[in-house]
Amino acid sequence: MIGTALFAVTGVLAVARRGLDVIGALALGMVTAVGGGTVRDLMVGAPVFWFQDVNYVWAALAGALAAFWIGHVFRSTMRLLLYLDAMGAALFAVAGASKVLALGLPAPVAVLMGLMTGIGGGLIRDVLAGRPTLLMSREIYATPILLGCTAFVVLLPLTPGTTWASTAGITIIFVVRALALALHVEMPGWLTQRGDQ
Amino acid sequence: MIGTALFAVTGVLAVARRGLDVIGALALGMVTAVGGGTVRDLMVGAPVFWFQDVNYVWAALAGALAAFWIGHVFRSTMRLLLYLDAMGAALFAVAGASKVLALGLPAPVAVLMGLMTGIGGGLIRDVLAGRPTLLMSREIYATPILLGCTAFVVLLPLTPGTTWASTAGITIIFVVRALALALHVEMPGWLTQRGDQ
Amino acid sequence: MIGTALFAVTGVLAVARRGLDVIGALALGMVTAVGGGTVRDLMVGAPVFWFQDVNYVWAALAGALAAFWIGHVFRSTMRLLLYLDAMGAALFAVAGASKVLALGLPAPVAVLMGLMTGIGGGLIRDVLAGRPTLLMSREIYATPILLGCTAFVVLLPLTPGTTWASTAGITIIFVVRALALALHVEMPGWLTQRGDQ
Repeated sequence: MIGTALFAVTGVLAVARRGLDVIGALALGMVTAVGGGTVRDLMVGAPVFWFQDVNYVWAALAGALAAFWIGHVFRSTMRLLLYLDAMGAALFAVAGASKVLALGLPAPVAVLMGLMTGIGGGLIRDVLAGRPTLLMSREIYATPILLGCTAFVVLLPLTPGTTWASTAGITIIFVVRALALALHVEMPGWLTQRGDQ
Repeated sequence: MIGTALFAVTGVLAVARRGLDVIGALALGMVTAVGGGTVRDLMVGAPVFWFQDVNYVWAALAGALAAFWIGHVFRSTMRLLLYLDAMGAALFAVAGASKVLALGLPAPVAVLMGLMTGIGGGLIRDVLAGRPTLLMSREIYATPILLGCTAFVVLLPLTPGTTWASTAGITIIFVVRALALALHVEMPGWLTQRGDQ
Repeated sequence: MIGTALFAVTGVLAVARRGLDVIGALALGMVTAVGGGTVRDLMVGAPVFWFQDVNYVWAALAGALAAFWIGHVFRSTMRLLLYLDAMGAALFAVAGASKVLALGLPAPVAVLMGLMTGIGGGLIRDVLAGRPTLLMSREIYATPILLGCTAFVVLLPLTPGTTWASTAGITIIFVVRALALALHVEMPGWLTQRGDQ
């Protein structure tokens, strides 16, 4: 729930620079927070998760409202927020992959749906806000999620219970993303095609 | 059905200024008219409403075609159309919220799905047409729908039958939107963050 | 399967000019290849097709990776690729319409879902990549698919088996699209509204 609110906070802060009214902020914050999990649930045929527990909605709206009203407070701690956002993405992505595996779907689908849970909300927000999406940037955001979810689905049948695999997956996502943030690493040039090429 | 055609008309007129061929006009008109209800149906797990009654498709295509061919006729009555569009949005949104409540989902979900029914089609159209979406503008469009749908779900258990609650919800949406149109009201500054801030 | 890989190749080549990292290329290639069929499956309530057979995922990822790494090889044969893409779109669209008819849905819905299968992936890719979508261009891409799918659903009850109707639909799509490509035909002016008008 805290992760949901955090996602909404970072979601609103990311677009607030463009000018936004309060309804737009609430809508975009909510989309960022629950959009990825919603698309995942639709694709795997599960009931949308926040229909069952409306507290996710309140958490997202509270986060969005906070970012709208007292955004300047958050902005001074923006770097801390990015690390919390990385932790939220790690928890959500592995939980998403786990939910999909539990439905009996194949492991590669679970990895992709974990990725969808982690980045889908941000993609929809960027599309609705008219910003370039994550997929067109060299930021290291999707890669750690792919690595962590892959580690999770590989380790799960090899270790007892789910704790080891979950912990490994979450740790990989958070550590790789945090390193990229701390060291300002972008996708290396040999894995990038310039526009001119 | 008339509301569907109207939504398609205003949907096409909104983008026609950018240049459009007839297939693009039909596609965008149809998306505007049935897109919001389609996403709502997918999210609540109901069959897509226009699969059951294809007349919605013909109504949307007829509206889009009319707006494409004789758009100049409509343009002279554009302000009238905006009021009709407001009435269409009011009817659709309350009907959407009502459908979701009837499926046994919680009231806040019904409000959000009513909003989705009212603005979802326009959002998808704007994204496909490369226009800034409603969420990034200060236009008063989503707010009356939120107010009206909230009034509807609050009044429904308090009044006998559904007529009172529906009428109240539809009236609130139409009147607030019509006032905003007539008085050229935008979202007030204290509810808006400027881009520079 | 080959069609899926081809769709991914052309999908990546279309956006590569903008600069792209390898994860973005894989994501956009996959979205182009399987996005249309995925939305169709969600709308008609069928399980997402590539959840059942993950080989579609590998085919799409292989195509996207190939386009990313050895894009210059493909680029010299870009025109050939466009014809192969037209063939892929023809096969996918008719197969999509056929699947929807088999679920007992009305013929107009089958035509629209055939169109969704053929162009949906490209639309989602363009939206995620921030490019103008097909719907805003005068390129002849959706029209042949509409014609071919309509021919398919009209002929199906009139001919024995499915072979005649399928062949007619696929042929119409491919030939009309190929002629448009070969003769550089755009949507004629009387079916287009200029932006200034």
